[in-house]
Order: sequence, then structure tokens, then C-alpha cells
Amino acid sequence: MATSTVLSDLGTEIIIPICAVIGILFSLFQWYLVSKVKLVVEKPDAGEKNGFTEALIEEEEGVNDHTVVQKCAEIQNAISEGATSFLFTEYQYVGVFMVIFAILIFVFLGSVEGFSTSSKVCTYDATKMCKPALATAVFSTVSFLLGAITSVISGFLGMKIATYANARTTLEARKGVSKAFIVAFRSGAVMGFLLAANGLLVLYITINLFKIYYGDDWEGLFESITGYGLGGSSMALFGRVGGGIYTKAADVGADLVGKVERNIPEDDPRNPAVIADNVGDNVGDIAGMGSDLFGSYAESSCAALVVASISSFGNTHDFTSMMYPLIVSSVGILVCLITTLFATDFFEVKTVKQIEPSLKNQLIISTVLMTIGIAIVSWIALPSSFTIFNFGAQKAVKNWQLFLCVSVGLWAGLIIGFVTEYYTSNAYSPVQDVADSCRTGAATNVIFGLALGYKSVIIPIFAIAISIFVSFSFAAMYGVAVAALGMLSTIATGLAIDAYGPISDNAGGIAEMAGMSHRIRERTDALDAAGNTTAAIGKGFAIGSAALVSLALFGAFVSRAEITTVDVLTPKVFIGLLVGAMLPYWFSAMTMKSVGKAALKMVEEVRRQFNTIPGLMEGTAKPDYATCVKISTDASIKEMIPPGALVMLTPLIVGIFFGVETLSGVLAGSLVSGVQIAISASNTGGAWDNAKKYIEAGVSEHAKSLGPKGSDPHKAAVIGDTVGDPLKDTSGPSLNILIKLMAVESLVFAPFFATHGGLLFKFL
Amino acid sequence: MATSTVLSDLGTEIIIPICAVIGILFSLFQWYLVSKVKLVVEKPDAGEKNGFTEALIEEEEGVNDHTVVQKCAEIQNAISEGATSFLFTEYQYVGVFMVIFAILIFVFLGSVEGFSTSSKVCTYDATKMCKPALATAVFSTVSFLLGAITSVISGFLGMKIATYANARTTLEARKGVSKAFIVAFRSGAVMGFLLAANGLLVLYITINLFKIYYGDDWEGLFESITGYGLGGSSMALFGRVGGGIYTKAADVGADLVGKVERNIPEDDPRNPAVIADNVGDNVGDIAGMGSDLFGSYAESSCAALVVASISSFGNTHDFTSMMYPLIVSSVGILVCLITTLFATDFFEVKTVKQIEPSLKNQLIISTVLMTIGIAIVSWIALPSSFTIFNFGAQKAVKNWQLFLCVSVGLWAGLIIGFVTEYYTSNAYSPVQDVADSCRTGAATNVIFGLALGYKSVIIPIFAIAISIFVSFSFAAMYGVAVAALGMLSTIATGLAIDAYGPISDNAGGIAEMAGMSHRIRERTDALDAAGNTTAAIGKGFAIGSAALVSLALFGAFVSRAEITTVDVLTPKVFIGLLVGAMLPYWFSAMTMKSVGKAALKMVEEVRRQFNTIPGLMEGTAKPDYATCVKISTDASIKEMIPPGALVMLTPLIVGIFFGVETLSGVLAGSLVSGVQIAISASNTGGAWDNAKKYIEAGVSEHAKSLGPKGSDPHKAAVIGDTVGDPLKDTSGPSLNILIKLMAVESLVFAPFFATHGGLLFKFL
Repeated sequence: MATSTVLSDLGTEIIIPICAVIGILFSLFQWYLVSKVKLVVEKPDAGEKNGFTEALIEEEEGVNDHTVVQKCAEIQNAISEGATSFLFTEYQYVGVFMVIFAILIFVFLGSVEGFSTSSKVCTYDATKMCKPALATAVFSTVSFLLGAITSVISGFLGMKIATYANARTTLEARKGVSKAFIVAFRSGAVMGFLLAANGLLVLYITINLFKIYYGDDWEGLFESITGYGLGGSSMALFGRVGGGIYTKAADVGADLVGKVERNIPEDDPRNPAVIADNVGDNVGDIAGMGSDLFGSYAESSCAALVVASISSFGNTHDFTSMMYPLIVSSVGILVCLITTLFATDFFEVKTVKQIEPSLKNQLIISTVLMTIGIAIVSWIALPSSFTIFNFGAQKAVKNWQLFLCVSVGLWAGLIIGFVTEYYTSNAYSPVQDVADSCRTGAATNVIFGLALGYKSVIIPIFAIAISIFVSFSFAAMYGVAVAALGMLSTIATGLAIDAYGPISDNAGGIAEMAGMSHRIRERTDALDAAGNTTAAIGKGFAIGSAALVSLALFGAFVSRAEITTVDVLTPKVFIGLLVGAMLPYWFSAMTMKSVGKAALKMVEEVRRQFNTIPGLMEGTAKPDYATCVKISTDASIKEMIPPGALVMLTPLIVGIFFGVETLSGVLAGSLVSGVQIAISASNTGGAWDNAKKYIEAGVSEHAKSLGPKGSDPHKAAVIGDTVGDPLKDTSGPSLNILIKLMAVESLVFAPFFATHGGLLFKFL
Repeated sequence: MATSTVLSDLGTEIIIPICAVIGILFSLFQWYLVSKVKLVVEKPDAGEKNGFTEALIEEEEGVNDHTVVQKCAEIQNAISEGATSFLFTEYQYVGVFMVIFAILIFVFLGSVEGFSTSSKVCTYDATKMCKPALATAVFSTVSFLLGAITSVISGFLGMKIATYANARTTLEARKGVSKAFIVAFRSGAVMGFLLAANGLLVLYITINLFKIYYGDDWEGLFESITGYGLGGSSMALFGRVGGGIYTKAADVGADLVGKVERNIPEDDPRNPAVIADNVGDNVGDIAGMGSDLFGSYAESSCAALVVASISSFGNTHDFTSMMYPLIVSSVGILVCLITTLFATDFFEVKTVKQIEPSLKNQLIISTVLMTIGIAIVSWIALPSSFTIFNFGAQKAVKNWQLFLCVSVGLWAGLIIGFVTEYYTSNAYSPVQDVADSCRTGAATNVIFGLALGYKSVIIPIFAIAISIFVSFSFAAMYGVAVAALGMLSTIATGLAIDAYGPISDNAGGIAEMAGMSHRIRERTDALDAAGNTTAAIGKGFAIGSAALVSLALFGAFVSRAEITTVDVLTPKVFIGLLVGAMLPYWFSAMTMKSVGKAALKMVEEVRRQFNTIPGLMEGTAKPDYATCVKISTDASIKEMIPPGALVMLTPLIVGIFFGVETLSGVLAGSLVSGVQIAISASNTGGAWDNAKKYIEAGVSEHAKSLGPKGSDPHKAAVIGDTVGDPLKDTSGPSLNILIKLMAVESLVFAPFFATHGGLLFKFL
């Protein structure tokens, strides 16, 4: 059936690591460029005064004021230290979890055949012998740990570069918006490329090392590799939930006392929670987001590989075709590299108005280029026809069909991005309507905001549904997995524009705290406003890809659990579906209440400091930032455990007691319900945030009629913004992980559930 | 297989109409008792001054003040006229829809066999001849119209008795809380019994009349009867959505200007929207709720009957067993009758504190008695063993298993009721926590309220899941349908305590508007507070039964469309599931935005009147109530069309273009997703409302520390309450109808979709 591929196996062995290394080198080069902005006092560079760039370099009074630079360095230091200390605390807890869960994986998977060390007949090819289940247990445990460690490193490095770049962006803002934009964007790119390339390289090396043991047993090899996805995603859970609670407890707490009670501006250095708030941006939006997208990437690769291993690719040991998902990701790195140059080198952002189009162009350029890339990869790395495993049968697929599967995912991502922009950017009518509803107070603002979020679900769901229909019809679950990979193929660019947001946000905070002039704050605000929209777009991508990934994982789970139908018309499946659809609500209730409780503690502490530290409001005394950082840290560590347990234990409990059919229902239910809440929560929050910014900026006549800051409509808008904080940065994005993680966990434990699961029904 | 039943067919033919007539007579008797309270000036009844009731009769100063009584009568008149005029306007539009849809049913179902008048071979028994598809078309159309008309009459009569009783409750409140309670409760009972008995009687007569034509073709007979459910439910849609928008536009509009801007109390006669607000309670909470529960009742009966007709009951023409669902409902009427006497005759409510327990006892008593009733019916009306159609096969079932199916539904209803009470009554910690979060402002209040709503979903979903598992496992879709009937078997009591709420609410409004003393207002407020909780319980029942009903309808649809599996692992079904889960969001976005828009218009009008009518605030000039009533009427009629179209057109579009598999996915998806949003929306709203009331009443130390009225925490609580209004009274309860109506519509059109549907896939 399978014909040979244009690309040889040797070519594949070369192309993947080379692309990964190029990505890492490019990332380091961007870091080097960012590091050229010095955080020490220096002489102005005479050379830059000349030439075409001059128009952009508007020197501020006191550009090189020694104290300002030093203050920036100090603040940056405080933020970086806070973030590092939080992440280390988080990692300690997560480390304990990792060890326990690793043992669990080993014991559960090892017990499938009673820890026997003798080879067994392969599941999908009865004529061959495969490695023992014990080997799967050992290697799954190892790949789990590798995935977890890679995820942690990705998040940590992202946080490091973000906290390295924030003050540098502030300082560059003195020279103009163009310079500041480039620093923030390059720093985002460092994170994007490092993560994409690292994820690819570690996965590639792991596969090759495991192959030494497994040899021709690809079924076992790629089953073990699924642990990589589980590791990546379980760290992402704690990153997103812990980071999300941290950042919003600080943000809500700081706003409730600072903006509402004390009437001082955002990021005012007198606010004791201000450092915690800025730390939060880095641990939540940067480290959390990084781990999340790494998890999606790892999982979709694993889902594709495990299905491919029992399709004709695996059966005929066609290594190049088998590596198709990794080659797509490799080419993605090159495409993103070229795309990045469009923002930093080919064109230049000269005015504030060019920022948002420049970032949006990144998405369009990368999507167009990647479509060509996918076409090439599908042509050279695939035989013209082959078969894909489809729940018990083999389905014939052509290479152009697989090209369409990947492309439909890629373009669906772009559509989701643009729809998200439409519903969350204050350039369009939905957000303006929400702002307008603030005239009649906070209640109508909340009602309109919730309605906007619900409405914003419609088109993304159709986009996801069409992607699923096309990819599923053409190439079953393999098609869905590569559609997810298609959406994530431009992950480096996506993360770059996404990480750019919190960096700019921090830069603005530093400018405010360092007491820099209003003009500089305006520039960083302009960067930040665009960042708000790109952050929403990034969340849209994360959710869209999570939906596809978890369906692919679900499909892989079903295949591995040897179920051929998941029939809604059986009570076992239906109750699973119903309870599964409830889980996102349970999870959201936990995370939102956690933010609320942590914020209340923060409010009390901030109030206490304002009341007990004399001279704090007058600016003559310094607040105690460290206590606020500690409150956020402690609260988020403590509060991330119950939702984490819910997600991690549900598949285990359902699988062990109710069996694989009910678990299938739970996975399908949580997927179709969770994706809706995730999209609506994230867009509602984004819309409220930008409705508030719309009133504050007062650019149009309409906006002016609602403002200025401090007016009743503005106060109503601030309430909406505060409600939106936990929705858009804690509960909403954490739901991605809920749906993915339950699916990948089920996949890893599938053989155990299939053998020993469903105890309750066995006894009844 | 089927053995004979204890109850003879003749006995069945007698018992059902007799129970229905008893229900109607009891209802009329209650109405007569209510009418004894005169809305004209009368001499105090000397006899009542003596005996044990004396303690309760605390004469007010000026009890028989002529002007007060006249004022009450006037206000009642205005409310009744407003409600009648709105309902007539609504029915005009709905009438047009009804005619169009009736034609659609006839044409679509007639076209299944090209309008042929010749008999055809039966679908489920190839040895017999059945009536032509054209007959199904004609009789389905007739039963659709009958269902629609019965629903309209149920809603209308409910509104009539409610607007008849509200002022009478106010007047009785002068004599004490006990008297007022009895009037309000009796009036609720009028509605409950009238609806339950009417629904049963019309259905019973229709079956018997249709049987004259159909003879032995029960397959065709009960297929045609499904139109009754569709008719009932489609009217309910417009009733709930139109009424819901009406009531909340008026309520939100009145509150935003009156309470927030002008600082005047609720129901103040100076507020121009106050009559519209009170009208709204009657058209939304009474007429809408009545139609909704009638729809559930009609649908679950139809779902049970259609499955029974192709089970052994239908195959062996065992009339008594066939009528099992109707006999259960008949016994339900008797049980509720006895239960009612516990509240009105056996025990007496003497103090405010006894109100809520007395209402809760109604639920417990009716559930316990009904369990015995179900046991008796299952014993006398069922053979000891029989078979039930189970997606292509026949499943053997025992009569005790069916008893368990009905009972599990009944008791699940009670559990849902109590959980709802726990999360929405301010006697427990969840609402108190929400009230406490008002300390830090409206934002934390909204966050905590949303989290509470999400959390309140957990136990009801488990209760529903267990009911489904038990009933589905024992008796397939027939089991699920009778479980729904079990939950609805005490509908008369459920509706009585539910309708009691808005009547008390109105009574309080009339007391305020008529300028009656503070003590009377306190009594009606106490009645109303208990009514808030029972209203939430009623919504819980409505949602729980809707979930079971729509699953049963879904099962009947699948059977009738001759599908044997609905496999999630096929792209057609999965995209249906995903899009179906999105529909409740789309629908909620529409209804919430409608309320928001209509409320904004109301706010403008109320503001205009306050600004332009001199002496309005001082109470020397009368506001223009009629304009506000007109705004609510026009807005709700206009705004109910898009959400109505979404619900009615979706099954048609999906069935015609995508076919029955995708439609199955859509139904399952909207069911599992919609039920969650419905529960959380309704409980969130109820909790906010009672958190506000908790602060206002200031009964405990904790509550006092948050109040009094007008304090910052109270203002925050009012914002939450206003946000909750559209959630709990418009979008939340309308979702019941969304999930039921799409299912019953699919069921009615199933033969058409199965024959002509799926055009898109046929062409591709």
C-alpha cells in the first residue's frame, strides 16, 4: 500500500534536529540583541543620531538620569526575584506530585500484565512479538518525567527573558515607540522559538533513544512516548492554575483598594500589591501560557504518533512518514523565523497605529507561508497513498488529503484569532456596545459583557467543527491530530506576539513605578493595548488547539482501549457525557472562588498597610511589597491543589470504577462543554478590559462622552474589568488544560483501565 | 410475554378521566374559596373575632379604610389589564406562528410517502398494515394544535387567577400572615391542579378520539400524539422567552432608575415602571412557568407513549399498560390533593417562621405519598413482566423495575429541590458568603455569585445522572421517560408552591403602591422571601425534568428515525455534539442582550418621566404607567423572535441538510451543555437576589454588619441582583425549553428527516 517518500529516512534524521537547532540559535541571537539594551547608565550613542532612524529617537528630558535607570533596574530585580521565588516554590510542590505520579504510572502500567518481563504478541499485528507491558511502564514513566521537565524549563526560561526584557522595554520607550516595540517583540520571540525548538528536540531525541531498545516494536515505542504529552500537560495545569490564581489575586486585590478605594492609578508604587501584580503577569501569562502551549504541542504530536504507529506508517516501518508531524513542526520553526524578520527587520513600526497591524500581519504571514510549507512537507515526507487506523479498521488516505487536514487546522486558527480580535478589541462595535452599557451602571455592563462572551463562541465553534469534520472525514483521528499540529505549527510566532503583551504591561508598570514621564507611559500603554488583543488571540489559539488536541487524544485513547464505538445511546456513556459536561463548571467554581478568596486576603493586607504605615499615601514611606508577594504565593500554592486534584483524579476514578465507556463519555462531555466556557470566559474578560481602556483613552467622541477616568461609567467599567480578571486569566485558560489533560491521562492509562477498570460494573 | 394486569381496561377508562375531573373540581373549589375575600368594603366578620384563630387576626388601623381597598382593586385591575393585553398581543404573534408551523408539519410529514392515501406495512411489525403517512401528518397537525391551545389556556388561566389573588392576598395580610399565606397558596393550587388535570384530560380525550380512526394501528396513533408535546412546548418557548424578557426589562429598568438613581424603594408608586414590573411577574413567572411545565408534562407522556407503542404493551394491545404514564399522572393528582390539605387544613401556618417549612413539607409529603402511589399503580396497571423497545431490540423488564424508574425520578426531583434551596436560601452559608463578598464591592460579589452558580450544578447533575443510569439500565428510553414523569407526577403541588411566589411578590407590590402600613408590607415580604426560594426550587424541578424529558424524547427520536447507535467516534455525530453544546450559549447571548436592550429603553423612559413630569418625585403627579407597559410589551414581542427562530429552525436545518446522525449529536450536545447553564444561571440569580434580601432584612449580627439599605455592601448586592435578573428569569429557564423543544421537534419530524434529510451529505 505505502509507496516510498521523496525525503529519505536519512534526510529526516538530519532535517528535524537541524531545524530545532536553528530555532534555538535564532532564539539566543534575539536574546543577545535584547541584552544590548543596557540597564546601566551609558553615554548616548552618537551614531544613532544620524541616518533614517533619527525621526524615531525622541530624546526625553533626563534620558540618562542615573536614578531613573537605577530605579528601573531595582524594580526589575524585585519582579524577577518574586517570580523566581514563586516558581521555585511552585516547582517544589509540583516536584513531589511528579514523583508520586511517576510511581503511579509505573505501577499501574506495569500491573497490566503483572509486571511480567516476557515479550507478548503485538496488539495490532498478531504475527509479531512486542516488548512487555513492563517496558511500556518504564519508558512511559521516563517520557513523563522528560515532558514535565521540558515544560518546567520552557515556562521558567520564558519568565526569565520576560523579566529580563521588561525594564529594557521601558528604557527603550524613552527613545520612541519603535525601539520599545522591537525589544518587547524580540523578547517574545526568544520565548516562542526556545519553546518550539526545545519541545521538538527533546521529543526527537527521546524517540531515537527509545528506539534503541524498542527496535521494530513501534507500537510499544510510541505508546511509551505518550507519557511526554502527559508530563508536559500536567505541569501546564499547575502553571496555569497556580500562576492564574497568583496573578489575579494580586491584580484584583491591588485594583480594589488602589483604584476603587484610594483612587490612585494602576501600578502606583505606593500600592503594596503592585510588585505582586507585576510578578503575576510573568508567572501567569508568561510561564503558564508557555507550559500550556508546550503541552498542546507535545500532546498533539504524541496523539498523531500513536495513531500513526498502528497505521501503515508504523506497520511498514516508514520512518519519514512516521515523523511527518515532527517535520511539519520543523518547517514551522523556519516559517516563523522568516515571519519574525517581517516585524523586526523587513518593515519597521514607526507610529503607535502600526503596532496592532504589524502583530496581526505576523499571523497572516506565518499562516500563508506555512500553508506552502505544509504542501511541501506533505509532498516530500508522505507516500502518495497510505492507510490510517480508524477504530478497528484501516482507512485509505492520499497525501493531499493530509495536506488539507493540516491546513484546515492552521486556517481555523487564523479565523479564531480574527474573531477573537473582533470581540475583544475596542476598535469594533461589540466592545464599544459594552462600554456604552456602562452608562446605566455596572449591572448592565456585566449583562452585556456576559452576552458578548456567549456570542463570541459561535464562529470559533463552527471553525473548529469544520476543521474536525474535514480532518476526521479524511484521515480519522490522525487527521484531527495533525489539524491540531497545523494550528500549532506557527506556535513560535503565536507565542512571540502573545508574550509581547505581558512584557509591555510590565514595562508600563515599571515606567509608572520609576516615576518616568507621562509620555513614556503613553507609549508603553499603546504597546500594552495592542498586547491585550494579541493576548486574547493567543488564548483563542490555545483553546482552539486544545479542542482539536483533546479530540485527537480521545481518539487515541479509544483506539488504545480497544473500543470501536462510543454510543451515546448506552447509559454508561450518556451519564459520562452529562457528568463530563459538568466538570468544567466544577473546576471553574473552584478556580474563581480561589481567586476571590485570595483577592480578599490581598485586599485586607493592602488596606492594613495603607492604614498602619504612616506616610504611605503621601509617598514618603515605602510599602511592604514582600508580604503581598508572599500572600499571592501562599494562596496560589494552596488553592491550586483542589482543582488540580479534580482534573488528575477524575480520569483515574472514572476509569477504575466505571470503565472505559463511561470515561469516553466524560472526555467527550468535558471537551464539548469546556471549550465553550473557555472561549466565552476569555473573551468576556478581554472585552471588559478593553471597554475600560476605551473609556480611559477617550479617542472617539463616543468614548469621550463616557469618560473621563473616575466618571460613573468608568467606575462601572472598572467593576466589569475586575470581574473579568479571573474569567480571562484563571478559570478560562485553565479549562484548556482540563480538557487536554484528562484526555492524555486517559490515553496513558488506557491499557490499565481496559484490563483492570470498571470495577463497579464488574461487581454489580 | 405480557401477562394480564390487575386493573381492567374498563377500569383504566374510568380512573383517568375521574381523577382529571376531581383535579378540576378541586381547583375550582379553591378558586371559590379565594373569591370569598372581597375586593369591596365590608363589615368586619364578628364571628372570626372569637375562637382559636383570634391570635392571628391583628386588626390594622384603618383595616376597612374605603380608599385603601379601592386602591388595591384599582392596582389589581391595572396589573390584570396589562397582563391580559400583553398575553393577547403575544398570542396574536404566536397564533401566526402556530398556523405556519401546523402547515409545515402537515406538508413535511405528508411528503414522507408522497401524500399517498394507501395503507403501508407497519414499521415495527411487518406482518400488519398501518395507516398511511398522510394520516400521521393530519393527526400530528391536529394534536400539535391541541397541545398549543392547551398550553396557551394553561398559561392564561394561571395568569388570571394570579392577578385575581394578588390584591386579595394583600387585603388578607391585614388580618395576619396566616390568612394571607392561605390565599396565596390556594391560588397557586388553583393553577397547579387546573394545569395538571387539563393536560391529562385533553391528552386522554385526544388519544381516545384518534383511536376511533387508528383502531389497532397504535404505532401510528402514538406517533401522531407526539404533536401534542410539540404544540405544548413551542407555546412554552414563546411564553418563557417573551414573558421572561418582559418581566426582566421592566424589573431591571425600574430598579436601575428607582433604586439606584432616585433612591426610592421597590414598588414605589412614583416609579413609572412599577406596574410593568408587576405585570411581568404574572406573564413571566406564572404564565411562562405554567406553559413550560405543561410542555414537560405533555412531552414526557408522549415520549413514554411512543416508545410503549412499539414495546410489548403496544404489540399486544394492552390498553391499561399502555396508559401507565397517564395513570401515574392521575394518581399524582390525588396525591397532590391530599398534600395540599396539609398546608391549608390539617396544619396551620401561624408565624412567619413556619412559612418556609410548610412549603418544604409539601414537597416531602407529596414525594412520600407519591412513592406509595407509584407502587400501587405499578402493581395494578402493569403485567409482572413485559418487553420494552431498546434501539432495535426488545428488552425484558419487570414491573418492580418500572416502579424504581418512576421513583428514582421522583426522588431525584426532591434532591434537586433541596440542593437548590441550600444554594439560594439565605439561611445557609453559600448565600451568606456571597453577601459577605459585597464588603469589597460589586466585582467580588459577581465573582462569588458566578462561582456559587457553577458549584450548585454538581449535585443536581449527579442526581440526574443516577436517575438516568437506573432508569436507562432497567427500561431503556421508556424508563427515562417515566422517570421524567415521576419527577413531574407531583406537578400540581410543585406549581402551587411555585406560583405562590409571584402572587406574594405582587401582593407586596400592591401593599406598597396602595400606601398600606409598614407591618403589612413586612408580612408580604416574609411570604415573598419564602417564595423566592420555592421559585428557585420550581426552576430546579423544571430543569431536572427537562433534562430527563429531552433525553427520553431524544431516545424516541432515535428509535423513530431508525438509528441504532449514535457513535461519538464519527465526524457527523461529533460535530453535532460540539455545535449542539454551543447552542445554549448562542441562545443565552440573544436573550440576555434582549433584556439588556429592553431595559435600556425602559431606563430612558423612566428617566424621561422623572425629568419631565413635574411633581412626580414629590408624589403629587401620577406617572404614565401605560407607556412603560407598552415598551415592555413591544420589546418582548420583537426580541422573542430571533431566539425562537434559533430553537425552531435548528432541528429543521440540521435534519434537512445534515441528516439524523448529526441531529442526534446536536440534541445530545445541547442537552448536556444546556442543563448546566440553566442550573447555574438560575441558582446564581436566586443567590444574588437573596443575598440582597439578607442584607436588607439584617436578621443576624453578620447581616447587620453589611447593612443597612443604602450602605456600600448593599449597593454592591443590588448590582449582583440586577445582573442575576435576566440569568434567573429569562435565559436560564428558557434553556429548559431549548433542550426539550429541539428534541420533540426532531421526534415529530423524524420520519421526514429519515426519508428526505441529510441533503448535504447526499450531494457530497
